[in-house]
Amino acid sequence: MRLIAFLNDQGQPALGARASGDELLDLSAAGAPATLDEVLRQGDAGFAALRQALERATVRRPLAGLRYLPPVQQPGKAFAIGLNYMDHAAESKFDVPKVPVVFPRYPSSWVAHGQPLVRPHVSTQFDYEAELVAVIGKAGRYIPKERALEHVAGYSIFNDGSVRDYQLRTSQWMMGKNFDASGSFGPEFVTADELPPGASGLRIQCRLNGETLQDANTKSMIFDVATLVASCSEAMALQPGDIIITGTPSGVGLARKPQVWMKPGDTCEVEIERIGILRNGIVDEA
Amino acid sequence: MRLIAFLNDQGQPALGARASGDELLDLSAAGAPATLDEVLRQGDAGFAALRQALERATVRRPLAGLRYLPPVQQPGKAFAIGLNYMDHAAESKFDVPKVPVVFPRYPSSWVAHGQPLVRPHVSTQFDYEAELVAVIGKAGRYIPKERALEHVAGYSIFNDGSVRDYQLRTSQWMMGKNFDASGSFGPEFVTADELPPGASGLRIQCRLNGETLQDANTKSMIFDVATLVASCSEAMALQPGDIIITGTPSGVGLARKPQVWMKPGDTCEVEIERIGILRNGIVDEA
Repeated sequence: MRLIAFLNDQGQPALGARASGDELLDLSAAGAPATLDEVLRQGDAGFAALRQALERATVRRPLAGLRYLPPVQQPGKAFAIGLNYMDHAAESKFDVPKVPVVFPRYPSSWVAHGQPLVRPHVSTQFDYEAELVAVIGKAGRYIPKERALEHVAGYSIFNDGSVRDYQLRTSQWMMGKNFDASGSFGPEFVTADELPPGASGLRIQCRLNGETLQDANTKSMIFDVATLVASCSEAMALQPGDIIITGTPSGVGLARKPQVWMKPGDTCEVEIERIGILRNGIVDEA
Repeated sequence: MRLIAFLNDQGQPALGARASGDELLDLSAAGAPATLDEVLRQGDAGFAALRQALERATVRRPLAGLRYLPPVQQPGKAFAIGLNYMDHAAESKFDVPKVPVVFPRYPSSWVAHGQPLVRPHVSTQFDYEAELVAVIGKAGRYIPKERALEHVAGYSIFNDGSVRDYQLRTSQWMMGKNFDASGSFGPEFVTADELPPGASGLRIQCRLNGETLQDANTKSMIFDVATLVASCSEAMALQPGDIIITGTPSGVGLARKPQVWMKPGDTCEVEIERIGILRNGIVDEA
């Protein structure tokens, strides 16, 4: 299934299944939970409810003009992974990590597909980062790598928008990675059964105003999705709805000569093969 | 007011006000909200409801045997500050920071007063850190330092328990600072009007099995509470219930010769003058 979280005509959260003809079938109107968060909390029963709703669903909505929501509304934890592609670690002048480098993102720091990314007025160093997201479907602690993919319900796309001067002014990256509305998440949640194991082997790209600035393949991750799930679960019990934002390949604006920053009026697209295209305009903070 | 979050006889969250004679008055039984989270969301109206409940309250409970909860159940964001005392930055071999160093803690990483701190089976480097917590009461972005203390509803105590090998094995500290049940928060929430501005000038100590291992004063912070509020709000809108864990003074186990680690059977106490004593035993992971 390919699921889309959106606001319905009453302004309420709803879940739809992507259908042919650039439409979705409204699953919530057919009795499914209103959010993927709730589906994931319910686990197998939640996905069974989605499939039942899919059989009954009759309300179709065009994707054009849809008010998207982030696929998961309120992940309890969002693990963002740094330096997880060899060539990006090199361009960033960091050593290649021996274990995953993890920093947080809070839900306040991202918007949905189609919503504007906000460049804050305290910085002009507003950078893009194309990333694959793994969404946890099953709780676990000390998850062995061999069983880790059983804990991943599906995948989506993230633009790990970064305010570089704030990110790098101390040793800890959290502040520059968490400006309000500085990143984006979506447009669709693709269940794991639709993709290769670990969503490996997929082309991943970032385009700014149509120009391709990142172009790599998810198979080039230093730590694959299974390893990341296992590693994160060493410290914390993973919970349904937690997300792992798996890191970006080379080509970020910071490392380019001359440097490239997102600015008001730009459009940034992150595309991952077989998952979709996450598109956002950039605006200045009001 | 000095507020205590606890589980009542029905196992439900409730709020009490500290009363004389090592007792509390059950405010929730007298009509107040069940959590400080809800009081803070309601703002002035929430605190007015608490004061009304305090006048009506008749149910008294002894503190002995009380099942404490963390003062705030689910802070949306928890900003933990690193290297915020000069002598701790020095003992940690880090440069003295020019702006606050911020990392996250998730609510899954802490327990209440009286609950056990859990040493994970993957490490023995389990360290204590005595810290003052500021609890945000009023939302804001780009809060000027001069008005920052208006956004702080009150204060409490944190033991920023740290798994040092995991904290320091990459550049980012998040993993070692977020092991499940590795820190603690409480016992009381003390409203700002009961303390000096910014909770400055208070003695702060950590004792392990009765031996004093940290002994400093909150006036020695490099960045005071007002500066921290202003700085955190540059990146993110602060929300009621967010917490700022303000950093630890020197004397941590990592920096001692020989090093000192918390181990099963130990008791760790963090005391801050006029706020209270946060006490936790240490157990091995089940």
